[in-house]
Amino acid sequence: MSRTDYFDDPRAPKAQRIVPAVTAFVVSAQGELLLERRSDNGRWGMPGGVLEIGEDLSGAVVREVREETGIDVEVTGLVGTYSDPGHVIEFSDGEVRQEFSLCFRARPVGGELSASTESFEVRWVSREELESLDIAPTTRLRLGHGFLNEVAPHIG
Amino acid sequence: MSRTDYFDDPRAPKAQRIVPAVTAFVVSAQGELLLERRSDNGRWGMPGGVLEIGEDLSGAVVREVREETGIDVEVTGLVGTYSDPGHVIEFSDGEVRQEFSLCFRARPVGGELSASTESFEVRWVSREELESLDIAPTTRLRLGHGFLNEVAPHIG
Repeated sequence: MSRTDYFDDPRAPKAQRIVPAVTAFVVSAQGELLLERRSDNGRWGMPGGVLEIGEDLSGAVVREVREETGIDVEVTGLVGTYSDPGHVIEFSDGEVRQEFSLCFRARPVGGELSASTESFEVRWVSREELESLDIAPTTRLRLGHGFLNEVAPHIG
Repeated sequence: MSRTDYFDDPRAPKAQRIVPAVTAFVVSAQGELLLERRSDNGRWGMPGGVLEIGEDLSGAVVREVREETGIDVEVTGLVGTYSDPGHVIEFSDGEVRQEFSLCFRARPVGGELSASTESFEVRWVSREELESLDIAPTTRLRLGHGFLNEVAPHIG
């Protein structure tokens, strides 16, 4: 399924739903970031997806990262909350959502790199390489927050 | 509308939806906490409610606190995320939700105390008084996290 992102755009369709989603800022002990080239928009981004009934936020992060990259992670904190009503996402099946995403900090604890149908490629990217990759501005915003100091609210 | 909360209860109805909600941990310069006795369950709790389409999380906090208590606040941080799938909430209209709530730290910047139809009473409560009030365990959990050190992830 493909998606189109609108930002403060008067031509954006009206949002029908707010669906909680998570992304994962996964950093290795060597300081490399786990990124995937997403099949829904072709750009490099963090693994993530929608919270499902029956799981908590940490569980959704662990499941999505595992599904999309093959890597097992442990959630260690929160990077930030992202709920700009001016960011509207239209999916090819007609659903239109207002952005609602929580970005979590996580560290790898096992697994092997492996792309899924949701990504063309997954790999560990050095911080120096980030500048040269095609990365959406919303992802760059989260990466910037992720590289700020660690914070530790309750995650549950 | 009344609500029934279930915790890891095999008799709980099956959750149909996850609906993002916010609560506000509002502390005055004197260290008193803004609480209301909620009309949906009769217990003391923090102001809060559901995120609406067209607003961001901070906007929802400001609106809900204003509507339920008369106080204007500014959001200053996040206390924590609460998404236990074992906590199921059944509303009297038949809707059943899985818990999904973000608790934000905020400070008063204006307004006058005033109860709404959603609360029997609102007031500033000293930390010493908290023990003697009828407060749900889920609220006590958040209050405990709120009294821990300030954290500052990105809120947006």
